[in-house]
Amino acid sequence: VAGKVLWHVTMSLDGFIAGADDEMDWVFEVDAAPSATAEEMIETMGAILAGRRWYDMVTARYGSREGIYGPKGVYGGRWRGPIFVLTHRPSDVRDDAGVTLLSDGIEEAIATARAAAEGKNVVVFGATIAEQCLEAGLLDEIVVHLAPLLLGDGVRLYGEPGVGRIGLERTALAESGQLTDLRFRVAQPGSSPPATS
Amino acid sequence: VAGKVLWHVTMSLDGFIAGADDEMDWVFEVDAAPSATAEEMIETMGAILAGRRWYDMVTARYGSREGIYGPKGVYGGRWRGPIFVLTHRPSDVRDDAGVTLLSDGIEEAIATARAAAEGKNVVVFGATIAEQCLEAGLLDEIVVHLAPLLLGDGVRLYGEPGVGRIGLERTALAESGQLTDLRFRVAQPGSSPPATS
Repeated sequence: VAGKVLWHVTMSLDGFIAGADDEMDWVFEVDAAPSATAEEMIETMGAILAGRRWYDMVTARYGSREGIYGPKGVYGGRWRGPIFVLTHRPSDVRDDAGVTLLSDGIEEAIATARAAAEGKNVVVFGATIAEQCLEAGLLDEIVVHLAPLLLGDGVRLYGEPGVGRIGLERTALAESGQLTDLRFRVAQPGSSPPATS
Repeated sequence: VAGKVLWHVTMSLDGFIAGADDEMDWVFEVDAAPSATAEEMIETMGAILAGRRWYDMVTARYGSREGIYGPKGVYGGRWRGPIFVLTHRPSDVRDDAGVTLLSDGIEEAIATARAAAEGKNVVVFGATIAEQCLEAGLLDEIVVHLAPLLLGDGVRLYGEPGVGRIGLERTALAESGQLTDLRFRVAQPGSSPPATS
C-alpha cells in the first residue's frame, strides 16, 4: 500500500511556524518531553520533501562533519532516508549525501518522494510546500506540535487572502511536556468537511 | 479574592478567530460536544468585556425579542451578568438591557468590569481587546477551543510585525467532540516564559 503524505510542523499558538527572521530558537526552548507522536512519525517515514527554508535552517544548525543525519540534523540524527529539497536556486545548495535537489512541480516532486519512500510515508516540511500539496489535493494529514507561546510575527502556517477553507478531522491528541500534539486528516477536495454536524 | 481576566476564544488551526468578513458560521458547524471547559467558564464568569466586533456579531444573530441573554445570544442564553462593550462608536449601538458601553482606555475598562464581576472572572472577547490586555499585562489566561479546519483568511488571534513574544504555560487540555480545548496561563510581563528548559 502507498504511504501517506504528512505535513509535520511545530506551531506557536498564534499560528506561526517560524519567527520573523526564520527564527526557530523557540522550538528548542519549549519544555517538551519524549513524544509518542514524533516517534511514530520517525518510524513510519520513508522520505522527506522539504522547501528551501527548511534546508537552510537545518544546514545552518549542523557542523560540517555532522552532516544532515547528525545529532543537529534532521530529527536529531534519529532518522535516515532520502531527502528531497524543492528549490529554484539549486546552485548554492551544499553537497550533502542523502539530499536530492528537485526543481519540479509539486506533483512530480511528490511522485518522486513517494517512489523513494517505498510504501512508507512522505513527510513534507515548509509552509510553501505544504500549501502547494493542499491546493493539489496531495496532502493526507497534518501533524502539529502546538507550542505554548505567542510569537507575534513570522512565517504563518497557512492563509492569505483568497485561499480556500479546508476541512480537517482531528484523529489524535496527546501531550508531550508543554507541547500539544495534534493529528488531523485532511478532507478530500470536493468532499464535505468531515467535522460538520 | 479578585477574579482573573480570561480571553475565551474559538480559533481555526491556522490561527483565525473570525473569517474574512467576520464570518463565524464555521464555529457553529464544528462537530462539538458538551465541553467541561466551557461549563467551567460559564460558572466562574462574573462579567464580560467585549469589543465592538463581538457585539455586532452577537446582535446580528439574535432576534429582537430574544435579547442578548436569549438562546442565540451570549453563551446560548446560559449566562447572565453585566456586559461591557468598549467602542468608539457608541451612538449606533442598540439599547440592550445588561449592556454598558465604555469608551475608556483598557485599564479603566478592565477595572470597571472587575468591580462588576464581584470577585468572579472577567472574560474578554475580541482580538483587539485581548491584545490591549496582553500589552498592559492585564491578561491572566487564554482559553482556546481549537476548531479542525484551515480558514485561510480573516481575523488573526494575535500578531503583527513588531509585537513581542509572550510565553504561555498550558494548564489544561481536553477534547469536546472535534474541538480541542486548551487553557494557558500568560507569563507575567518581565518574567521568563514558564515553558523553557
